[in-house]
Amino acid sequence: MDLLDLSIVDALARINFDSAGLVPVITQEVGTGRVLMLAWMDEAAFRSTVDTKRGTYFSRSRGRQWVKGETSGHEQKVVGLQLDCDGDAVLMFVEQTGPACHTGAHSCFDTGGIR
Amino acid sequence: MDLLDLSIVDALARINFDSAGLVPVITQEVGTGRVLMLAWMDEAAFRSTVDTKRGTYFSRSRGRQWVKGETSGHEQKVVGLQLDCDGDAVLMFVEQTGPACHTGAHSCFDTGGIR
Repeated sequence: MDLLDLSIVDALARINFDSAGLVPVITQEVGTGRVLMLAWMDEAAFRSTVDTKRGTYFSRSRGRQWVKGETSGHEQKVVGLQLDCDGDAVLMFVEQTGPACHTGAHSCFDTGGIR
Repeated sequence: MDLLDLSIVDALARINFDSAGLVPVITQEVGTGRVLMLAWMDEAAFRSTVDTKRGTYFSRSRGRQWVKGETSGHEQKVVGLQLDCDGDAVLMFVEQTGPACHTGAHSCFDTGGIR
């Protein structure tokens, strides 16, 4: 699977970053199909993700870019990226090392509270 | 699969609605595991979704609630709802009738532009 079959310039032109310069990203595990997390990217994080093929986001709470797994080792190898029909969201396919959630759960949606 | 195993009051208390009163919702098709769309709910749309078991959102462009399929017939039967670890996102499992995307594609992520 190619990561992108558009140029990154064309891809960035199609993304509708919000007023804070961010776009929501759905991270889905290949193989299992599980949705692991929802996070955000700014343009720099999107570029870094494409360039490095490692899941890279923008933390709204910390106000900075972060590479998933940079401290935990639970990194994401990115194998595909899609935009939705109006460029309002990104769907990212990854191979996840270890748990995706900081709680230690495989998915951030493993709350058990609502199912 | 129960739709909710928390009370709706407890669920709403855990959701961190943003400054516009909205939360992003990832809609995933049961069976195929495909991510169909990303959209938004306000509290009323979340309540309607739980009460009716039909995918109900808040349109940011139209500024009002909408029931998926209300005009197209391409409705979503909701079979499960999860919150993420910090209440910042909802994952909704649905049985989709017809295409999910207004373009006629099965998923809004069927752009073909980026894969």
